[in-house]
Formats: sequence, C-alpha cells, structure tokens
Amino acid sequence: MSEWVTAFAPASIGNVAVGFDMLGLALEGAGDRVQARRTDGDGVTIAEVRGLDGEVHPYLSTDPKANTASIAAQALWDAQGGTRGVELKVHKGVPLQSGMGSSAASAVAAVVATNALLDEPLGPAQLLAYGLIGEQFASGGLHADNVAPSLFGGLVLCPQVLLPDVVRVPVPDGVSAVLVHPDLQVNTAHARKALAGGYSMSDWLAQQGLLAGFLVACAEGDVDLIGKTLKDVVIEPQRKASVPCFDAVKGAALKSGALGCSLSGSGPSLFALCSESRARNVASAMEQACRSQGIACESWVSTLSAPGARVEADG
Amino acid sequence: MSEWVTAFAPASIGNVAVGFDMLGLALEGAGDRVQARRTDGDGVTIAEVRGLDGEVHPYLSTDPKANTASIAAQALWDAQGGTRGVELKVHKGVPLQSGMGSSAASAVAAVVATNALLDEPLGPAQLLAYGLIGEQFASGGLHADNVAPSLFGGLVLCPQVLLPDVVRVPVPDGVSAVLVHPDLQVNTAHARKALAGGYSMSDWLAQQGLLAGFLVACAEGDVDLIGKTLKDVVIEPQRKASVPCFDAVKGAALKSGALGCSLSGSGPSLFALCSESRARNVASAMEQACRSQGIACESWVSTLSAPGARVEADG
Repeated sequence: MSEWVTAFAPASIGNVAVGFDMLGLALEGAGDRVQARRTDGDGVTIAEVRGLDGEVHPYLSTDPKANTASIAAQALWDAQGGTRGVELKVHKGVPLQSGMGSSAASAVAAVVATNALLDEPLGPAQLLAYGLIGEQFASGGLHADNVAPSLFGGLVLCPQVLLPDVVRVPVPDGVSAVLVHPDLQVNTAHARKALAGGYSMSDWLAQQGLLAGFLVACAEGDVDLIGKTLKDVVIEPQRKASVPCFDAVKGAALKSGALGCSLSGSGPSLFALCSESRARNVASAMEQACRSQGIACESWVSTLSAPGARVEADG
Repeated sequence: MSEWVTAFAPASIGNVAVGFDMLGLALEGAGDRVQARRTDGDGVTIAEVRGLDGEVHPYLSTDPKANTASIAAQALWDAQGGTRGVELKVHKGVPLQSGMGSSAASAVAAVVATNALLDEPLGPAQLLAYGLIGEQFASGGLHADNVAPSLFGGLVLCPQVLLPDVVRVPVPDGVSAVLVHPDLQVNTAHARKALAGGYSMSDWLAQQGLLAGFLVACAEGDVDLIGKTLKDVVIEPQRKASVPCFDAVKGAALKSGALGCSLSGSGPSLFALCSESRARNVASAMEQACRSQGIACESWVSTLSAPGARVEADG
C-alpha cells in the first residue's frame, strides 16, 4: 500500500449575507484534514473518522456510501479511471451542522487528497464538480457556496447558472471576518426546506441590489459601501428564529463596530465583517453576547483571502 | 430676465440585461437639451418643446404639470427656495418610448439647467432625487436606471434599496455599446404592468448570479466573463414579444461577435456590448436584420464611459 497523502480544506462562510447559494468565503484556522492512500482493495473506503479531540467521531459513519468525503472521492476516482482502492482517514476540524461548511470541507479535502494519488492529478478547477457531489449528498442541493471557497480560498462567487465556472472576487485590504459558533446544531437540508417560497419581486430586487453593491464595494475596496450593503433581507428574517442568540450576537457585533453581521450559511454560526484592527474586539463582544444567553461558543478571526485546500507535506 | 443656460443629458440603456431596475449605462451621441432662464413669473413654465427636426414636438405637452422636465425642475426649484419663475425650452434628441431613457434625459437636463440658475447650485449627487421625481411621473415607478447614468455618465448601479446612494461601476477598456432603435414604440408604464409576478426562487437566483458575475467581470476587466453573464433570463422572455424584430436583431448581434444583446429598458431598442473594433460591424448587422423585417431603425455606438449631464457653454 502507498504512503498516506494528507490534504487540508478550510471551513467557509456560506451566503455571506448577500449571496444566497452563490457567495462563499474561506475561513482561516478551521478546517478538515483527510488522509488518503492507495490500497489493493476495490473503491474508496473509510478507515476512520475522528473528531477534534482525536477520538472516534460519535456521529459520522465510516460507511463509504454515507460520508461526503468518500462519496466525493469515489466520484473522482471513478471518473479519472483510478484502479484498485483508496483508503481515507477523515479528521473533522469543523463542527457538524455549524453553518461553517463542514460537509464541504470534508468533501474537498477528500477530493484533493485522492487527486494526489492519481497518475495524472487534475487542476483545482476540475476538482470542483467532485466536491459538489459530496456536498450534494449532505445538503440535498447543488450549491457551491461552501465547496468553492473551501477549494479555491478567498471570496468566491459561484452561482449555479455559471457552474462549473466560479469567479474569485477581489477583497479589500484591512477587512477581517469574524465567525462565532454557538453550540447549537442546524440541519442544512431541513433549514433549506423551511424557507418559504413565493418571494415578491421587490424582496428579490432589494437583495439583488445589496449583493450587487457589495461586490462592487469589494472590487473597489469601498469599506463604507460594504457596511451599507452587507445585509440579508430575504433569508435571515426566516432563519434567525432557529438561532435563539441571534439578535443578541448580531447586536453586539454591530455595536462593537462590525460593518455587518448575519448567519453563516443556515447557521447557527454568525459571521461579521469588520476592520482588521477591531476584529478581536468584535469577536469578544459576539462571544460574550452568546454566553450571556447561556449558550457556549467559540470564535475565529480570518483574513478575507484565506488560502484554499492544499496537500500538506509529510502526510 | 436672465440669460439662457443650456444643459445636455445623454440617453441611456436601462437594465443592461442583467440589472432590472438597478443598472444603467449612459449612451454617447444621443440626448436631450434643456434651456432654462429666470423669469419674473411664478414657478416653472415651458416655452416650447421641439423635436430633432427643430419643429414643435407633435406629442409632448408644454403644460408644466404634464412634462417630466418641468416637474423635475419645479421640484428642485421649490426645495431649494428658488424665487420667481423659471422658463424652459426642451429640445428632444431622444426618441419617445424608445427604451433609450427619453423621459430621464429630459428630467435630468432640466434639473441640471435649472440648478445652474440657483444662487447656490447643488452638486450632482444631490440632483438625483429631483431627476427621479420627473422620471416617476413618466414611468410610474421609483427606479433610477436611466436617471442615474444620464446624470452621472458611465455604468451606474442604482438599486432602490441603496438610494440616494448610487455606485459607479468600473468598466473595461476596449468594450463598446451598440444601440439600435427600431421605429416602434413601447410604453414603459404599460410594459412594467405586463410583467408577470410570482417569479420562482430559481429564476431570481439565476438572474442574480448573472448580475453578480457581470459586475465582477466589469470591475476585473474580464471580457470573457462579460460574454458569459450578459443575459436576461427573467424579463427579456416576457418582453421580447412586443418587439417583432427582436429575435432577428439579437441573432445578428451575436452572430457578428457581440458579447451579449438584449432589450434596452423595456424596448423596443436593443443594445449589445462588443469589442470596440467590432462595434461598427455589429451595429450594421443589427440594423440590417431590423430592416429585413420591414422596420426602419437607427443606431448609435458608444463608449461604456460616456460622460453624464453637463451645462454647455454659451447656452
């Protein structure tokens, strides 16, 4: 059997308030690692899934048909004519159902590690489709707003209408992302079903205008305009009720100078964008507000240009 | 009575295919002129409205309560404490109900000329609101996608949710706009009412993704991505039936190398974006296709950074 190859894929902030299903931001400092090696077996198998504490993961299955990592890796392996088997070890660094792109990080790390085992590895742009297959298993939909930033890093525009193309969005200097993860779980697939249909034209035009303004603000480095546009007027009002500390945490973020604050993906995590110099304060204020509601939490502070997934040396 | 002041305001392309009600592009070479002078009378009056041929305009009224130019000018004059009267002469250079922002050009030119008569003229950003009052009279809605580009020039993002802020969008070098005006009329207010409601979430997400991609493409100068994103999948399918030559003219534009082609505003004009070097060919092909359907037309070729409204010397 061959040597283990290790790949890391970062967590990510889906939607980024303005871009439901089409905008995502890689998060520095949190992510999943997947190790892969060739075996003499048949197809992709999972040797183990471990959590942050190094223990066997209490919830995730090693059944290769029931894990995003193996499903994504198998799709790549089949499509690229990989022979014999691949064995994976999945090390979860991203909390499950946290709104931090946990399933995407596993799928992307598995694809990147497995890709390195191929005789002729694909480039990152070609890997997106396989990451999405894993993500689709987890969330039930074809949306790339976690897979794409986890794979490519930074802020990525990835509307379904443009797939497989995705667009890296320029980001301004001096702006950070803060993510606070309250110790609650929200199931993405359920959260998606809970969204009411029949949006009015004016709702959509408002949200579309905010997204448009936000993207130009990022491209132009207009921090004031980021503050005016980083708002979700369509999805957040429907979803925030599932996160009991939402109003307190968002209020604390804005009060401590954040440019904007909303749910990360379908929550329960919240993210804020703010000036780099305020990021630690914003994170503390958000954590404190969360704990004041009796909910434990942890936080991350990230650049807006966090690197995407990569093979690590000496896996 | 004081000297006449003359202001010019360009025609404009509303929606720009991707940004219904929120994106507009100034068009070089076509526009309205409004002359204004102080009088000893009371309020804003209209001395005359003339067409391109220099003759008295056959349709537009000199009743100050029924003309976008005087309505916009009166709103500015009242708000800024102008005393006595203002007399306007309106010279229409933009065809009526053409989808070229005719009413916006008149309103903006009137506001800019009247502003120059004030003891303390306002800056352009402060004039937007008064132009919109004129436009609202004509189209029945508060949308700035003709007024804003006519006033500020270039490509302007102006969603209602951000008003009175508007955002100038960077444009790539080497790309031109072509506009062909078939000799047909479409009433904007009627065209708006004809839009069906109840858009699906997936329709809106597709259109939103195209808008988002287009804006990043413009900001980054990514001409290929402009070609992939310059599409209207929501409004154009509903409106194109009112322009019998639509398919022929759009087909000719794309066949001759345009990056994309759609209705300008609610039509009947069509616009295309294309490389500067192809612009004359694209314009010819579109004109020819229109005439082959038995419909007379004229065309314009414009930079994407056409200047906005301005006072002209020696008015």
